[in-house]
Amino acid sequence: MTTTTTATNCDLIVLGGGPGGYLAAERAGQAGLSVVLFEKNRLGGVCLNEGCIPSKTLLHSAKVFDHAKNGTPFGVTADNAKLDQPAVIRRKDRVVRRLVAGVGQTLKNAGVTVVNATATITGRQNGRVTVSADGADYEAPNLIIATGSEAVRLPLPGIAEGLAAGRVLTNREVLDLTVIPEHLVVIGGGVIGLEMADYFHTAGSEVTVIEMLDHIAGPADPGLALALQQSFERAGIRFALGARVTAVEPDAVVYSQNGETRRAPATHVLLSVGRRAVTAGFGLETIGVSTERGRIPVDDRCRTNVAGVYAVGDVTGEWMLAHAAYREAEVAVATILGRPDRMDYAAMPSVLYTRPELAWVGLSENEAIARGITTRTASLPFAYAGRFVAETERSPGEAKFIFDERRRTLVGCHLLGSYASEIITSAGLLIGTGLPVEQMKRQIVPHPTVAEIIREAIWHAWPETR
Amino acid sequence: MTTTTTATNCDLIVLGGGPGGYLAAERAGQAGLSVVLFEKNRLGGVCLNEGCIPSKTLLHSAKVFDHAKNGTPFGVTADNAKLDQPAVIRRKDRVVRRLVAGVGQTLKNAGVTVVNATATITGRQNGRVTVSADGADYEAPNLIIATGSEAVRLPLPGIAEGLAAGRVLTNREVLDLTVIPEHLVVIGGGVIGLEMADYFHTAGSEVTVIEMLDHIAGPADPGLALALQQSFERAGIRFALGARVTAVEPDAVVYSQNGETRRAPATHVLLSVGRRAVTAGFGLETIGVSTERGRIPVDDRCRTNVAGVYAVGDVTGEWMLAHAAYREAEVAVATILGRPDRMDYAAMPSVLYTRPELAWVGLSENEAIARGITTRTASLPFAYAGRFVAETERSPGEAKFIFDERRRTLVGCHLLGSYASEIITSAGLLIGTGLPVEQMKRQIVPHPTVAEIIREAIWHAWPETR
Repeated sequence: MTTTTTATNCDLIVLGGGPGGYLAAERAGQAGLSVVLFEKNRLGGVCLNEGCIPSKTLLHSAKVFDHAKNGTPFGVTADNAKLDQPAVIRRKDRVVRRLVAGVGQTLKNAGVTVVNATATITGRQNGRVTVSADGADYEAPNLIIATGSEAVRLPLPGIAEGLAAGRVLTNREVLDLTVIPEHLVVIGGGVIGLEMADYFHTAGSEVTVIEMLDHIAGPADPGLALALQQSFERAGIRFALGARVTAVEPDAVVYSQNGETRRAPATHVLLSVGRRAVTAGFGLETIGVSTERGRIPVDDRCRTNVAGVYAVGDVTGEWMLAHAAYREAEVAVATILGRPDRMDYAAMPSVLYTRPELAWVGLSENEAIARGITTRTASLPFAYAGRFVAETERSPGEAKFIFDERRRTLVGCHLLGSYASEIITSAGLLIGTGLPVEQMKRQIVPHPTVAEIIREAIWHAWPETR
Repeated sequence: MTTTTTATNCDLIVLGGGPGGYLAAERAGQAGLSVVLFEKNRLGGVCLNEGCIPSKTLLHSAKVFDHAKNGTPFGVTADNAKLDQPAVIRRKDRVVRRLVAGVGQTLKNAGVTVVNATATITGRQNGRVTVSADGADYEAPNLIIATGSEAVRLPLPGIAEGLAAGRVLTNREVLDLTVIPEHLVVIGGGVIGLEMADYFHTAGSEVTVIEMLDHIAGPADPGLALALQQSFERAGIRFALGARVTAVEPDAVVYSQNGETRRAPATHVLLSVGRRAVTAGFGLETIGVSTERGRIPVDDRCRTNVAGVYAVGDVTGEWMLAHAAYREAEVAVATILGRPDRMDYAAMPSVLYTRPELAWVGLSENEAIARGITTRTASLPFAYAGRFVAETERSPGEAKFIFDERRRTLVGCHLLGSYASEIITSAGLLIGTGLPVEQMKRQIVPHPTVAEIIREAIWHAWPETR
């Protein structure tokens, strides 16, 4: 009754070698499962090849360049500071190659078989799923779908032509750009849009960000998002908010705002209006896996509607963050191993690696109120942290903390300023562990660090009284 | 029966306006106690005026300068990069003034009376301590001694003359130096010595570090301390270890090493051989407060041997860290308020703000073994964190984690690399809360951050098995 006598049998098949897929394969392999992972492109997925990591190499070069150009407030001067964009891209490629190789080595060490091919789900019998790739069949009782997401391409006049001509770019192409655009228009003021706006503005482009909503940075705290916008504006980046793009022309982006049609000059256009789960083209329908609004819904153990079939990462639709995918991968593997584990998004962090950095974890104030939580908040400037004052000149630093008044726990933390990306983990731990205020107040933070803002906020919100 | 009818009465007298003293006064004032704080110099103590904060302003300028000078690996070039040392010192002075003013404002807001004068303990009757300053008397049932520490000055030939001539410097004078020494000899390879060695080497000095022990960075993990030393050596800093200074001459420091007498050329000498608690000169003996090896011993509630008299910060001798002083201040105030609280040093972090940064919290491997803990360790390079690879070229990054095998908790974390200072707090929280491995593994860290090294280490040490 087996589907084919020549199929390769294993414990787990993973579709997709991005963060969700490769970590699932690694964890399962380490736990002793036989695992086959399929990836048609390079290991590491969007995050490693055309997302998080390449953008961080560029942004670090921008920081170094900014120090060379604008060091005067810190007593540093230099002439003729230049950013060599082709060199920046070459370095980015080296970094990516090194990390992709690292993922491959890790999978090898975990005993995972990596098949570099397009895989298609071909059937499911007796609780075993069959996948075909390059003419060979593979069979396993467990399948993890980690097919990720792709950039949304607006169906507007001029977009297709612009993409073909290399003037319109998605996250993929923009990270390979070896010229600095004269006029860059960024459509979409989310993470990718803002990080690239920051980079290319620092590198020398005139940058305009066009955003449909009336604010940037999506679900970030409104006050901090506005402070970031104002900081960008002071630096010279222009924003068109509440604006809808209607066409991309060879030298401009046309948009409507307040009922008026406007044009932003554009030699290049970055399309960063969001990402969409990849659920088509690999046979999902063959085994009856449900999709919903273009994504695969899962329960808190990352199970789809089909027994033995799991989905993790961007394909599940909501969070679209590498570290969410990592954790989902772990939960899926734990479930396969028969261990109790479940997803908890209460302490899920988000980071924008702009300068200043914007990071948050847990609930916004409005979300907390909407959940019926009686909130107690603390808003304070980073200037409470001596290190911030020591290292910063005219750069914003603001923090907002949201506590559950009755349970006496931290439920949300929002940071705009230097090191926000690295210190948000500490706030996440306070939320994730549900540590009571009385214990939070006793935790020690080294002086002088920007992380001290967490300790300051706790004591601000919960002072000792007589 | 009162000692004087004209004495000012209050709930708490604090001697010293450094981190321990000012935070004790702030917390007590906020809790409704009437507080008088005495400080003969500027508020903020050594830490703010001639320690942690000024050194961080200098080190940040060095980082900016290094980026301007050595940006080529990141695609950045500039000509004629210069560090304007007088401008760096002027900025440092501005930063310190601003933060000192901030401490003053905070104390004012908390209702604390600050007396800018030398105070002397003059007696204790009926459980009330009397302090005199500028001819006025003050009386309180509670006294917190936070008189801090001072740099040890070696009684060696040439030191006194060198100090008088401005060629020999302590932490105080070195942070006001408006010239870049041609040859700087640093006596003592601890925190201050190494941070200043890094700064002045980057600024252009030839630097030699002379250290009595066979390793630098005191109690740091030996492997990481060696890696830091090697990184410094590659940059051009020289080290003489296991070396004892015998004399300071006008143009050299004489030391003996392996039985030989050697000379290191020196236009300037930084004396950073340690600090000593300040226990004399303010009447401690008048009320019978015990000292021991030049410090004031206290119990875990920061109580001295005299009822109602507490000591916090460097004067207690062991840790000599601002954040230890902060926490001790809180414990002393809680005790005064009659609340249960006690000092716990299990998660006390230490940080060297060198490049790369060195930070640790909790136990070293040897300390853990000496306490009878069955250890499980994880040593791994920072290269496991994609952000580190994205932002770093040829700079070391190493981590060592020590777990309690039986209790399944983290007991020590040692980090050498970028952001170590800011991410050590997360490791400290894991130690401080005693979080079990199973829960640690479920905590989420944003990708890509260097903080991910913590998550990597936990999963390395405690993989899932079948």
